[in-house]
Amino acid sequence: MSGQWALGVDLGGTKLEVARVDGRGAIRESLRTATNVREGPAAVEADIVRMSRALWERADSLPMGIGVGIAGQIDREKGQVRFAPNLGWREVPLGADLERLLGIPAVVTNDVRAITWGECAYGAGQGIADLVCLYVGTGIGGGVVTGGRLLEGCTNTAGELGHLTIDLNGPACTCGNRGCLEALAGGWAIARQAREMVRQDQGAGEAMLAMASGSMDAITAEVAARAAAAGDPLANALFKHVSRALIAGCVSLVNAFNPCRLILGGGVMSGMPQLIDEVRSGVKRWALPAATTGLEVVPGALGASAGAVGAASLAMGTKALHT
Amino acid sequence: MSGQWALGVDLGGTKLEVARVDGRGAIRESLRTATNVREGPAAVEADIVRMSRALWERADSLPMGIGVGIAGQIDREKGQVRFAPNLGWREVPLGADLERLLGIPAVVTNDVRAITWGECAYGAGQGIADLVCLYVGTGIGGGVVTGGRLLEGCTNTAGELGHLTIDLNGPACTCGNRGCLEALAGGWAIARQAREMVRQDQGAGEAMLAMASGSMDAITAEVAARAAAAGDPLANALFKHVSRALIAGCVSLVNAFNPCRLILGGGVMSGMPQLIDEVRSGVKRWALPAATTGLEVVPGALGASAGAVGAASLAMGTKALHT
Repeated sequence: MSGQWALGVDLGGTKLEVARVDGRGAIRESLRTATNVREGPAAVEADIVRMSRALWERADSLPMGIGVGIAGQIDREKGQVRFAPNLGWREVPLGADLERLLGIPAVVTNDVRAITWGECAYGAGQGIADLVCLYVGTGIGGGVVTGGRLLEGCTNTAGELGHLTIDLNGPACTCGNRGCLEALAGGWAIARQAREMVRQDQGAGEAMLAMASGSMDAITAEVAARAAAAGDPLANALFKHVSRALIAGCVSLVNAFNPCRLILGGGVMSGMPQLIDEVRSGVKRWALPAATTGLEVVPGALGASAGAVGAASLAMGTKALHT
Repeated sequence: MSGQWALGVDLGGTKLEVARVDGRGAIRESLRTATNVREGPAAVEADIVRMSRALWERADSLPMGIGVGIAGQIDREKGQVRFAPNLGWREVPLGADLERLLGIPAVVTNDVRAITWGECAYGAGQGIADLVCLYVGTGIGGGVVTGGRLLEGCTNTAGELGHLTIDLNGPACTCGNRGCLEALAGGWAIARQAREMVRQDQGAGEAMLAMASGSMDAITAEVAARAAAAGDPLANALFKHVSRALIAGCVSLVNAFNPCRLILGGGVMSGMPQLIDEVRSGVKRWALPAATTGLEVVPGALGASAGAVGAASLAMGTKALHT
C-alpha cells in the first residue's frame, strides 16, 4: 500500500473498529473487537494502540494520523471526551493519550459527525453543500452541513436530531423529555414498543417471541425488523408507527434546514430498507413544497464503515467541508 | 441628518412601513399605510416610491439604497418575489422595479430574515455567531445564524421553523400537514382555539366574547391575550397550551441548532410577555443540558421595527453576518 493513509477508529459502546483507510476513503484492512467497557479508558486505549500497530505493520508508509469517532460530547480542540454515556467515560484525554502512545497526530470527534464527514467526503454527500445526515441506530443522532460547513453550534452540540419533539404527548425519552424522535423511532424505543405489544397480545406476538427464542428480553429492533420482513402483522403494525415518526422528524428537518440531500443511515434503516422509500414519499407529501424542490432522500453510501472512514478522513485533513 | 442612511421597508399583508434608518440602525423617521393588496403590485410599489421620496426629501444626503422585507419566498439574487401568499403575489420583480423607479440599489429579502438581520446588527443578537430568531405573529417564521452565517439552505427556504412537527396527532396546519408549531401557537391558531373554546363553553367564554364586542369572528389572539392578562380562566387555559407548544418547539430548536441565543419576537410574544419566561424555564428544563449550557433566551430588542431596520441594514451592506 503506497500513498497517504490514516487510521480510522469507530469507538462504540459495544464494538471497537480500527481501519486502515487510504486517501480515496477506501478501507484497506480493518480489525474489530468488543469494546472493553468494564476495564475503562486505559484498557480501551490499549486495544486501539494494539490494533493500530497491527495495521500499521502491514502498511509500507507512516499513517498521517489517527481519527476517532465516539458517541458522546467531545471537545474537539483538545481531543477530550467530555462525556460518553455508553462507555461511562467523563473527561478522558483520548486524543492526547493516543498521540503519546502512537506518536502520530490524533483527532477525536463525535461519532455521527465522523459519519457525516465520511459521507460528505467519500459517500452519499459528495459535493453537496447543504445536507442533513440522520443516523437511526439504537439512539438517533445527526450531522448537518449548511453552506459547506458542518454545523457545530454554541457549545459544539448542534445536531442532536434524535431529540426533536415530534409528539408532545408522546412516551418518555432517556433524555428526560417526552415525545422525542428517538423515543418513537430509535432502536431502543422500537425494542421497547415491540415488547409491550407482545406482552399485551401474546397470541399476535407469538411469532416475534419465537424469533427471540422465547425470551422477552431478546426482542430487539433487529428481531422486530426480521419479523416484519417475514410478514408478521404485529411487527408490521409497529413499523407503521416508526415510519410515521421518522416522516414527522424528517419533515421538521427539511422545513428547518432545507437540505439538498437527506442521508439516512444506521442499523434501523439498514434493517428495514423500505423505511427510506416511506420517508422519501412522506417528506415530499408533507414538507413545504418550496423546501423539497431540490431535495433528494438517499441511504448512506458507506454503510457501517462510515464512522471509521470519516474519522480517518478527518485525520488526513480531507477538505470535504470548510470547518 | 448627515452620514450614511438607507430606506427600510416592511411589507406585510396588512400594513406597509417605510423608514429612514441611519448607520447605527436607528429609525429617524417612518411612514405607515395600509397595504393596498387589492390593487396589486404596481399600486403597492407606487406607495413605496411615494413614501420613500417623502422621507428622502427631508434628509440631507442620498440613501445608500432601499431594503425590503416581505413575507414570502424570495429570489434574493434577482430581487424577485417568487410567492407572497399574504399579498397574492407571484413572480413580481420588486427589486428591479424599485431600482428603476427610485434610481438607487434595492435588496429584497424574506421578512423574518430581515428581522433576524436587524436583531443581529443592532438588536438582541449583536456579536452572536450562533442564534435562532423565532418570530411568533399570525404565522410563525424563523431565522437561523450558525457560525456567523445566515442559514439559507438548498433552495433558500431554510428557517421555516413554524413548520416543525411537534404533535404528530395534532390539528391541521395551513401548510397541509398537521401538528406544526404554527398550528398550535401561531396567532391564527390561537384565535381558532379561542373561538372553539368559547363555542364549547359559552358560560366560561363570556368574558372573551364580551371583549370581542360579542362577535365570535372578532376573537383574535390579541383579544385572548388581553383576556388572559385580565385573569380570564378560559384564556389562561388556552395560553397554557400555547406555552407548552412553544416550549416543545424551542426545545427542538435548541437541540438541533445549539444556539448561544434564542431570540423571541412577534405580536404573540409582545402580547403575552410572560411566554418568554415560560419558554426560558421550559427549555432549560427539557432540552439537553449540553445544549443549554451557553444559552440565553431573550426577547427581540427592536420590536415592531426590526423588519424595517434589518432591511435597511441589508441595503447599507452591514456586515453583521458573513453572507
